[in-house]
Amino acid sequence: MDNVNEKIDEVNAVTVNESVVLNLKLRDIVALKQILNNASELDLLNTIHDLSNENQVLIYRLLSKDKALSLFEHLDTADQEKLIHSFTDEAAIEIITGLEPDDRVRLLDELPAAVVKRMLAALSPSEREVTNLLMGYEEKTAGRIMTPEYVRLLKIMTVAEAIDRIKKTAKDKETIYTLYITDDSRRLDGVLSLRDLLFADPNDKIEDIMVTNPAKVSTDDDQEEAARLLQKLGLLSVPVVDKENRLVGIITVDDVIDIIKEETTEDFAKMAAITPVNKPYNSMSIMDIVKARSPWLLILMISATFTHMIIESFEGALEIYPVLYAAIPMLMDTAGNAGAQSSTTIVRAMSLHEVRLRNLFSIIWKEIRVSVICGVILAIVNFGRMYLLSGTSPEVAVVVSITLVLTVFVAKTIGSALPMLAERVKLDPAVMSSTVVTTIADVLALIVYFHIARVLLGI
Amino acid sequence: MDNVNEKIDEVNAVTVNESVVLNLKLRDIVALKQILNNASELDLLNTIHDLSNENQVLIYRLLSKDKALSLFEHLDTADQEKLIHSFTDEAAIEIITGLEPDDRVRLLDELPAAVVKRMLAALSPSEREVTNLLMGYEEKTAGRIMTPEYVRLLKIMTVAEAIDRIKKTAKDKETIYTLYITDDSRRLDGVLSLRDLLFADPNDKIEDIMVTNPAKVSTDDDQEEAARLLQKLGLLSVPVVDKENRLVGIITVDDVIDIIKEETTEDFAKMAAITPVNKPYNSMSIMDIVKARSPWLLILMISATFTHMIIESFEGALEIYPVLYAAIPMLMDTAGNAGAQSSTTIVRAMSLHEVRLRNLFSIIWKEIRVSVICGVILAIVNFGRMYLLSGTSPEVAVVVSITLVLTVFVAKTIGSALPMLAERVKLDPAVMSSTVVTTIADVLALIVYFHIARVLLGI
Repeated sequence: MDNVNEKIDEVNAVTVNESVVLNLKLRDIVALKQILNNASELDLLNTIHDLSNENQVLIYRLLSKDKALSLFEHLDTADQEKLIHSFTDEAAIEIITGLEPDDRVRLLDELPAAVVKRMLAALSPSEREVTNLLMGYEEKTAGRIMTPEYVRLLKIMTVAEAIDRIKKTAKDKETIYTLYITDDSRRLDGVLSLRDLLFADPNDKIEDIMVTNPAKVSTDDDQEEAARLLQKLGLLSVPVVDKENRLVGIITVDDVIDIIKEETTEDFAKMAAITPVNKPYNSMSIMDIVKARSPWLLILMISATFTHMIIESFEGALEIYPVLYAAIPMLMDTAGNAGAQSSTTIVRAMSLHEVRLRNLFSIIWKEIRVSVICGVILAIVNFGRMYLLSGTSPEVAVVVSITLVLTVFVAKTIGSALPMLAERVKLDPAVMSSTVVTTIADVLALIVYFHIARVLLGI
Repeated sequence: MDNVNEKIDEVNAVTVNESVVLNLKLRDIVALKQILNNASELDLLNTIHDLSNENQVLIYRLLSKDKALSLFEHLDTADQEKLIHSFTDEAAIEIITGLEPDDRVRLLDELPAAVVKRMLAALSPSEREVTNLLMGYEEKTAGRIMTPEYVRLLKIMTVAEAIDRIKKTAKDKETIYTLYITDDSRRLDGVLSLRDLLFADPNDKIEDIMVTNPAKVSTDDDQEEAARLLQKLGLLSVPVVDKENRLVGIITVDDVIDIIKEETTEDFAKMAAITPVNKPYNSMSIMDIVKARSPWLLILMISATFTHMIIESFEGALEIYPVLYAAIPMLMDTAGNAGAQSSTTIVRAMSLHEVRLRNLFSIIWKEIRVSVICGVILAIVNFGRMYLLSGTSPEVAVVVSITLVLTVFVAKTIGSALPMLAERVKLDPAVMSSTVVTTIADVLALIVYFHIARVLLGI
């Protein structure tokens, strides 16, 4: 045992991570077990992240049941999924039974149907019922991610009775910090924070201290709706009711953080013309990535061939002024950048609900004014660069500079309008990503360019 | 009063929003006061958001002091700032005094120095000391956003004593759900959830039930560090300690959600080559927006003139095969899109800490394999399109298709490498945004294109 204690002391000198890796190499199971069960959860999470699947499973076997479950709960769903596949069925069932209903549903969603069936069969009848109920709601709805593990009080209780009830019945509830008050048929009457309950007089009636008419979402609402409500009001959990206003579950703040993370990652993917996949980058195979990216590259490549046609139709004119060719890439880049700035800004503002559809015209008007100022600044600098520094003929420099003003104007106008129009027809604004806007802006920039060249240069 | 009650009944028929707007028009102050003080906080937030500044101030005057403060706390900092400017000094001081220290600092950060001085002078000496202390930490550090309003227990207390102490002293603390145990000189010994405290035996000693060695951040740590820790461990608050491990404050989950929102919005801005401004879109003036966007448009426009020089240097070659011009926009778009996909994916994965700097080579290798498959798919489709559908000469179609493969390869390689190299030299990976990557990828795509054309077409 001396050997073990020495190794534990080393933990403080080196890190948990390093000593686990060392003892995995040495296959010193006794030392590993000591180190793991003395380590903090944070150290365990940081350690397990970089290990091979096989070693992860070994570590789970060595942890006490409680520690193993708690660690598992804090892993990403993708990491959980990988682990479950490596566990024996028995170990997998033990873990899945131990999870909270909402976490369980999130994990089962990612597992193959045959595995889900086996896991469901192994649950107790009441756990199975709860799980099946949650899995019955559509994905990304409040119903799908809620947990039925909330604390319910009745408004006729006194504060002392309520505290007593919490101590007796609430040990396994997801949270006890927000308490929900319902009538006999579970209709939501009010909410109460544990804080207010503790500071109230023991003889007060719950109905006198509860907050009536609480903010809530419905089972069919988008999960983002619940996230927004919780953020707006600074809550720790949001109640979820069915069509008859019966309380069926709650969504807690940790789930809201996950929703925000997930939805943001999706927005990032869409902005870059990638089909969103709810998996961390490391867990995606090469083919997963190719499948998410190549269709969009293809669609955009084919759309870009419009530029091909435009250039070909102006070939006669371009042969007279071949110098016009050289400015095309700069004009296209600027169109894309100006459009991307507007579309990214508007998509983000819409997802934060800072701007709404009814603001459409005022926003486009704002972007138009911004675009004119930006365009004029670019045009002046560009004219100086072309005419004064590079010695381009003044006519061509003027054509390119005027094109810049119009291009920035067009790019910013469509960059701001398209995401809002997408929402108008019930599409996600983020599909009008900077990438899509860039491709459209490029086509329009070329058309503007050649028309201005024709008019001003008389070709 | 009948009139008023009728109007209140209408509130249920119409919405709070509509009836407030109506009564603002009628200037019916009595009715307004009734409606406002009976409305839920959510309704008030939704109503006030769209009103003119003048009407917002009127509504604050009509609300009870408690309701006004609670509503103010839930506004965005930018909205708070606008309101404070419209209040009388007296009203502003009342509100600012009522805020939690961390919320107060966040608001004061946005106000002009002269106003801050006036507000600080009006605070009680102890509130002023706390506020000055927090304002002494650098922006975006854990110290700057923490609140000193936490509940502190000693490990020698019993559970019953601790509950008693909470009831007596914790009424105004930011949270009572996580309790911090320190020694006499405030060194952090452990944490305990109110939940565990409630379910413990009243005679248990705190030191026997607390969690020792808790996760914590230091005052100088980046606020994102605190956010990540809270998310990883599913906490409701994170303790902040100074260099001597003395507990100086906590960061709560609602602040973490704000940090996540703010940092994400910054990443979005950087991805689109916009200087991040911590203000909602609606609160930014035209000139604010121009200032945030035009420098980047200028820098990128000037960088794009490299393409100009490349095209000019190949002009002789292009005169022989003018058809080569027509594919330039499509090649540039594809280069930009392929690069944006990789850089956006990597920037997001890095900000979620899914990938780290030490994974640099394995990630580039992954992106290279993805790029080859994507490039070959695009090349095949492109060859079919050019040669079979458009009747381009097979030599030119081959040149463009081979360029596509190499372009996607180059774009994805630099798109994944640049954000990681930015982090390597301590820059934010997001500065290697899709926009910057696009501009670089465009230049490289053209160089690749003309070299392949020269070799294959013998020009």
